Amino acid sequence: MKTDPTKTMELEERDRLLQVQRRRQRLESLGSLASGIAHDLNNLLTPILMSCRMLQRENTNIDRDALLETIGSSASRGAELIAQLLTFARGGDGEHLPIRVDQIAPEVIAILRHTLPPGIELVLEVEPDLPVVLGDATEIGQVLMNLAINARDAMPATGQLGIQVTRTTLKTERPYTYATMQPGEYVTITVSDTGIGIPRDVRERMFDPFFTTKDRGQGTGLGLSTSIGIVRSHHGAVEVQSTVGQGTRISVILPAWNDNNQAES
Amino acid sequence: MKTDPTKTMELEERDRLLQVQRRRQRLESLGSLASGIAHDLNNLLTPILMSCRMLQRENTNIDRDALLETIGSSASRGAELIAQLLTFARGGDGEHLPIRVDQIAPEVIAILRHTLPPGIELVLEVEPDLPVVLGDATEIGQVLMNLAINARDAMPATGQLGIQVTRTTLKTERPYTYATMQPGEYVTITVSDTGIGIPRDVRERMFDPFFTTKDRGQGTGLGLSTSIGIVRSHHGAVEVQSTVGQGTRISVILPAWNDNNQAES
Repeated sequence: MKTDPTKTMELEERDRLLQVQRRRQRLESLGSLASGIAHDLNNLLTPILMSCRMLQRENTNIDRDALLETIGSSASRGAELIAQLLTFARGGDGEHLPIRVDQIAPEVIAILRHTLPPGIELVLEVEPDLPVVLGDATEIGQVLMNLAINARDAMPATGQLGIQVTRTTLKTERPYTYATMQPGEYVTITVSDTGIGIPRDVRERMFDPFFTTKDRGQGTGLGLSTSIGIVRSHHGAVEVQSTVGQGTRISVILPAWNDNNQAES
Repeated sequence: MKTDPTKTMELEERDRLLQVQRRRQRLESLGSLASGIAHDLNNLLTPILMSCRMLQRENTNIDRDALLETIGSSASRGAELIAQLLTFARGGDGEHLPIRVDQIAPEVIAILRHTLPPGIELVLEVEPDLPVVLGDATEIGQVLMNLAINARDAMPATGQLGIQVTRTTLKTERPYTYATMQPGEYVTITVSDTGIGIPRDVRERMFDPFFTTKDRGQGTGLGLSTSIGIVRSHHGAVEVQSTVGQGTRISVILPAWNDNNQAES
């Protein structure tokens, strides 16, 4: 078979343009992460610097305790920001033990119920005889809570918030949003809503740290990015399906704990 | 022409895998940015928190001034970090005026000479009658200095560091590393070295904030990312050519200031 040199050049040019586009998108993500952190850091450091300068003036009329309190609480909020960034960067630090997701889900729902407006119906479906997964129950609970709160906020007044815990068997390798999963047994947690849906461009960046469609003060933009950090540290994957105006389904798939290992313990 | 359904499915699967890979790379970049910032933030906040707690203990034996000095200087370094992140995120804030790159380059070189080991030869080539560009002279000088310092550090003992300032005319649209440039007149600054070269995987991420191949303490990993921020705010592009073991050429192309605008002022 002969290759057409014009065709080859066209393909190379197309590849090069796609590569430029990909790098530009990456740089944009990094840009919003950098400016998000810069914004939050500024909010932390300004009161520290101001309090410090007032304390250095040796004025006896100033409320020294209050200024030290400001410095301390700003620095503590900084430490929280660090913890969230690290959770995103390397996943949670929690110990991974065999856990049952079907037992975590009802606990989360018990807390969640208090925050739901009356027009939103909560539906929990848990498949029987699910395999256990190796993980940190607090962290998995946090992921589920983050997804459920976003699902709630996607529904203006009425709607249905569903949480499903099911078994998934992959016969062949399958690509998810951020990871390709190997064949095997998985436990899938799906959070669905009948809300406003997620437009395509938002879907592409919704897990980036500091990316948020909520107003400043309403969301830090770290909830979903912390979640993806946790899911990745559990060797899991995420899948987002969404239709604007109809609703969203976000699934977290976590590898089932190997039966052989289970038998050993 | 008939389409082969197996072929189409294969192509779709390939596209989906490429997409997963692209998202994963983006997440990795964001991860190293997040952990880089978390590391630096931690180094700033720990002394602030500790000093604050000691001051709150009301012990008269403590050196109050020294503790306040620690709080103040840590917070100031935090402010510097914010400034660097913002330069990356949105480019410099400097006012853009018509500037002559051929005049900036010799100024940078005058400073640079003092930092070069005797085995490194510096060669400057400036094309005559270059167009002016609209920009901030300090920022462009900073970009050139960053590139030159990296070029110096790429050469262990001997070698040639070249700085070229030339006119580039694009007849058609052309993709560079992070941007596609429209046809027109440009001024190109090229910094070249005969050093160790940059491997392909490093080349892909060398402009990411906090990405560094230098040891901790030797480089912050913010030099090149600040540079790309500045170049982007000048509507410019960057091009990297490198051969491992032979050397590297990094070009910054900046749009020439339109002659019509020039006539107006």
